[in-house]
Amino acid sequence: MTTINRAWTVSAQQDVQYSVETTFDILDPANPTLVDGEHGSRRLIVTDTTVNDLYGEKIRAYAAANLSEYKILVLPHGETNKRWSAVETVLEAIETFKLDRRREPVIAIGGGVLTDIVGFACSIYRRNTPFVRVPTTLIGIVDASVGVKTGVNFQTGKNKIGTYFAASRNLLDTSFLSSLDQRHVSNGLAEILKIALVKDNELFALLEEHGAASLAGRFQQHTEAQQQIIDKAITGMLEELEPNLWEQTLERLVDYGHTFSPTVEMTALPELLHGEAVCLDMALTTAISVHRGLVTTEEAGRIFNVMRTLGLPVTHPSMSADILVAALIDTTRHRNGLQRLPLPTGIGAATFVNDLTPGDIEAALNILTGAMNRDLERSAA
Amino acid sequence: MTTINRAWTVSAQQDVQYSVETTFDILDPANPTLVDGEHGSRRLIVTDTTVNDLYGEKIRAYAAANLSEYKILVLPHGETNKRWSAVETVLEAIETFKLDRRREPVIAIGGGVLTDIVGFACSIYRRNTPFVRVPTTLIGIVDASVGVKTGVNFQTGKNKIGTYFAASRNLLDTSFLSSLDQRHVSNGLAEILKIALVKDNELFALLEEHGAASLAGRFQQHTEAQQQIIDKAITGMLEELEPNLWEQTLERLVDYGHTFSPTVEMTALPELLHGEAVCLDMALTTAISVHRGLVTTEEAGRIFNVMRTLGLPVTHPSMSADILVAALIDTTRHRNGLQRLPLPTGIGAATFVNDLTPGDIEAALNILTGAMNRDLERSAA
Repeated sequence: MTTINRAWTVSAQQDVQYSVETTFDILDPANPTLVDGEHGSRRLIVTDTTVNDLYGEKIRAYAAANLSEYKILVLPHGETNKRWSAVETVLEAIETFKLDRRREPVIAIGGGVLTDIVGFACSIYRRNTPFVRVPTTLIGIVDASVGVKTGVNFQTGKNKIGTYFAASRNLLDTSFLSSLDQRHVSNGLAEILKIALVKDNELFALLEEHGAASLAGRFQQHTEAQQQIIDKAITGMLEELEPNLWEQTLERLVDYGHTFSPTVEMTALPELLHGEAVCLDMALTTAISVHRGLVTTEEAGRIFNVMRTLGLPVTHPSMSADILVAALIDTTRHRNGLQRLPLPTGIGAATFVNDLTPGDIEAALNILTGAMNRDLERSAA
Repeated sequence: MTTINRAWTVSAQQDVQYSVETTFDILDPANPTLVDGEHGSRRLIVTDTTVNDLYGEKIRAYAAANLSEYKILVLPHGETNKRWSAVETVLEAIETFKLDRRREPVIAIGGGVLTDIVGFACSIYRRNTPFVRVPTTLIGIVDASVGVKTGVNFQTGKNKIGTYFAASRNLLDTSFLSSLDQRHVSNGLAEILKIALVKDNELFALLEEHGAASLAGRFQQHTEAQQQIIDKAITGMLEELEPNLWEQTLERLVDYGHTFSPTVEMTALPELLHGEAVCLDMALTTAISVHRGLVTTEEAGRIFNVMRTLGLPVTHPSMSADILVAALIDTTRHRNGLQRLPLPTGIGAATFVNDLTPGDIEAALNILTGAMNRDLERSAA
């Protein structure tokens, strides 16, 4: 009897490539972008009830003009429907439609919840089925539709199950924003501000000067400045995502604003939108940086001012020391035992720290309260 | 208004690495392999009812001796339970056990069905949760546990939903085969024979000489020959899988025996095991190669003889021309419009063809019938 054990090591690299493209009026029947020039082919289109109410007729007219055969699946709108049952509904539609997996990508038109569900379904149907993502919200355009995360909620966990799976094409059309309420425009602006704060002071200057007008006009003026704001946000996001697509590195600049916010968002649900919770986190960490001498009071004042200009909150009752300390512990566990907390250094740069204390959080909360009080005094004066 | 469209292309590479290791008596409490030397840690162990009946006590004794905390989840055995609900059961157990995702891999002990379910669950829980795979069947050892496919059945489709996800470690222990019935040893030998036929004539010679004894002794003698048979099968499989882990190339030698067999297996269900259907496919394609002059009659005789020695079928009533033509059409659709049919050339090599006709299939069936009749005459003489 021989007892020599054998061992093999398998090493391989998976190449992933996808595109992010801007377009205007993607639902204009004369615009070939959505079907990639393949007039006359078959497509399964998935959208949600809200988008269907606003754009259902346009989608049908586009499909009738450009496709030989199509099915439109409408999922219920909203975070509470972001569950496995929705994924199953998409899988059943793919199976019934019998699409040619390599040549007939599924088209997802909707907000982040919808595109996360469709992306998850496509990633597991026959282990991968291509899909095209068309975000209809600003946060979808600058955040959800530039990365590779898919997923749904499971039990009490947000996005607890999912995959890393790239849409083959991400088609960004700001004309959808004309029907978005202003609060949801602010919601997307929070993720744009995030990129500005950690890595792009020119983008910050653009937001300082043109943020209010972009918000009021929902990016429909297509000015040079409005286009630059969106382009720079996407470019900045992609620069950070591309070298770390599968999150092997847990020190991620794009996690800025996402240390305390998951807990705050869940605690305040449904009161706060995702971007609002992210902005509260950014305000707090800006104050932490002031406390640590990494950001001047003057810089912090400019940052808080831009937040208000963009319609975003700087303080909130659920930002208590207790909740914030608990949030930090939870995030530290998710970042494999280290805080890896991005902290701004000036405007447009950041560093990572692992030594935050409850004292830092208390001091930051005091700075935020002080800043608010000075504002109140100023407006009263 | 500017109308210049912008486009970004994201390119990235995901590195995947995993190990395949042989070991003996992995459930011996003194064997550190299963816990990777991390005595005293926590583990979630998933197995099925059949394995639990045979090895449940040993697993518990091993866990009690080596782990500070553990939970053993037992899923119902069998292909009919290979559904999403089983994946959900595993996800719930992971969530409840609250494992440290980076340091506490899930352990899956069982046949291919069980390890496919657990692998799927782990691949999607927080977008990846490491797992260790311990196959308990021969087909698991030489086939399911060396690759990266996970998945479950969906509606009527076999493995219709799943992922490409590598177990971080695959621990192969032939001592489990002592409890396997002989038909299931044959089932695994079919996948070994596949590798021999398309790329390893030395492995074929080993099967010719030692196949019968390996089958009868369930690989428990640990002779040099038995060890070589398994080592060569795994080495051959890995050589083919490693450069094509995500199946970008649809011309795969490991698809040999898997052109007609999926339809034949489903048609004859539950009569034929997977390996038996694969062997019928290999017998047919050997005959096709004889018809095309790629394999001599003498070589084919040796191949059919080894099949019988290994307890595998060469013909079956469900191998009718009608079913086989339908199977070829279905597989061609799955291979993106081309047959990409691996055909043996001699023993230990293969080529791909795209021009198979119903006439080739008819001719091959006649050759198989002729070979059977000669055998009957010979044994009657």
